Amino acid sequence: MTSTATASSYLGVDVSGATLRAALVGADGRVAERREAALERGALPAQVAQVVSELRDANPQIAALGIGVPGLVSPETGRVIVSTDLPAAARGDLRAELQQATGLPTTLENDANAAAYGEYVAGAGAGCRNLFYITIGAGIGGALILDGRLWRGASGFAGEIGHITIDPDGILCTCGNVGCLETVASAPNIVRRTHERLLRDSTSSLSRLGLAKDFTAADIAREANNGDDFAHLMLERTGRYIGTAVATVINLLNLERIVLGGTIMEAGDLILQPIIREAGKRSFQPCFEATQIVAAALATDAVPVGAAMLARDAAK
Amino acid sequence: MTSTATASSYLGVDVSGATLRAALVGADGRVAERREAALERGALPAQVAQVVSELRDANPQIAALGIGVPGLVSPETGRVIVSTDLPAAARGDLRAELQQATGLPTTLENDANAAAYGEYVAGAGAGCRNLFYITIGAGIGGALILDGRLWRGASGFAGEIGHITIDPDGILCTCGNVGCLETVASAPNIVRRTHERLLRDSTSSLSRLGLAKDFTAADIAREANNGDDFAHLMLERTGRYIGTAVATVINLLNLERIVLGGTIMEAGDLILQPIIREAGKRSFQPCFEATQIVAAALATDAVPVGAAMLARDAAK
Repeated sequence: MTSTATASSYLGVDVSGATLRAALVGADGRVAERREAALERGALPAQVAQVVSELRDANPQIAALGIGVPGLVSPETGRVIVSTDLPAAARGDLRAELQQATGLPTTLENDANAAAYGEYVAGAGAGCRNLFYITIGAGIGGALILDGRLWRGASGFAGEIGHITIDPDGILCTCGNVGCLETVASAPNIVRRTHERLLRDSTSSLSRLGLAKDFTAADIAREANNGDDFAHLMLERTGRYIGTAVATVINLLNLERIVLGGTIMEAGDLILQPIIREAGKRSFQPCFEATQIVAAALATDAVPVGAAMLARDAAK
Repeated sequence: MTSTATASSYLGVDVSGATLRAALVGADGRVAERREAALERGALPAQVAQVVSELRDANPQIAALGIGVPGLVSPETGRVIVSTDLPAAARGDLRAELQQATGLPTTLENDANAAAYGEYVAGAGAGCRNLFYITIGAGIGGALILDGRLWRGASGFAGEIGHITIDPDGILCTCGNVGCLETVASAPNIVRRTHERLLRDSTSSLSRLGLAKDFTAADIAREANNGDDFAHLMLERTGRYIGTAVATVINLLNLERIVLGGTIMEAGDLILQPIIREAGKRSFQPCFEATQIVAAALATDAVPVGAAMLARDAAK
């Protein structure tokens, strides 16, 4: 741990879920220490300052702070513009408040962008220069690394793969469109599709799933891994939807790597292999052959590591 | 014309169709002179050398040559890798042959990439830094300008919007996928869909179109402009397919501008407005609001101008 204490390190914090996750990260992207706590939405700057002060005693060289937030961050001002899950962040100037509370130069970034950068620097994207990161959980987000840098788009909103149309005649999405990827492949929508199929197809081999009235996408993944054919089928179909979206990214951008993260990917090969198969069927072959489709490697470290590395870059 | 004769100019040539189109282009992207001839596929270097020699007398300052080819060009070697329409180009080293025949430094580029760059420098993309160009004709191609430069992707194949899935249960595409944009919105497929609709719906107001056994997409566009409801409907539906693809690009990349070219866009607002409406419905609103969707401005000059400007950049 001596090297961590003497060389510069960066604190990355993920405030996108119910748990605040902090990681002290070296300049190479390696995590030296972690902290977790229930997120105090109303007192975020004070809570982050507390984490900084706890870590600083043993790590006096913390050079900068990066925060991954569930919202859109303006590339010009560094301010949070929209945040459904953390509305207080969009009301004030969270970056200024964090800088004041911690005394550290602070960088804010959208959580999916931060996770993509984390995977790029120290995870499943290491060694390539161009990747698309997709996170599939309660919602579906994405982010792009082009030529080794986050591609945020003209106004900071690039990567919205959750809202591309996959089922043109599908159901209404929260975004107002019909048939977005999110309406068929997010965790709540995998559960919805499973319930619908159970309702209309009484011959499905319901086995364990049929015993539970309430189940989650994680339950479906677990049962599929335990050998349940019906749960397996639901993941297979979900993988086809995601694979169609992946093929679109491959055709449009001809990237070296697609990195898939989020809770749904905990199902492992049962979801990854159908994604790869469908992407192979639906993409232009020379593009497909140039692309590796892989699972994310950093799990819950992705956002803190990426946020820390973006803070490192900003401090250069 | 004196300024053209004294300042450097660049020759851009489009060999992607039945007609060879050459343009002498200033460093600012303005066309000074044009030449057209039936393309001699078997004697391309000699034919281009002939054009160069004709133009050189009055324009001794031609500094470089750029060629837009219907095929994939390797970013590393500058060689044509695949060309269905011009197989001879992929067999030899076309760039070396052209350099030898003309004595000019020569740049080869995929025709859609060249057209996109032409529109970017001197057409409907002028004044923005990030755009997606789509050309809709016998096939559907695309190309990307990011931060003012062509984005060719990891292996030179980016921009294949013609092969993204729009109709997941649709018909087989030449690429092997099912339901590609090209299977519903290219010129031959607009004609196919129109024939199908005429077959199955005898109440359609066939009017003029119904009189002709053979018709083209251009006929449909003309009749729509003349007020034929049925032709109008076919363009409207085609616009919805293209608009869905445009929305996907907007959501993934958050670009400033989408530029639509190719013969189908000659239908004007009858195709452009349905594209914009559908893109508006199907894209994430903050992304959509940041994007202008416009018709291309350079028509058949796009490829020669873009090829000339890429030759200009390579000569810097």
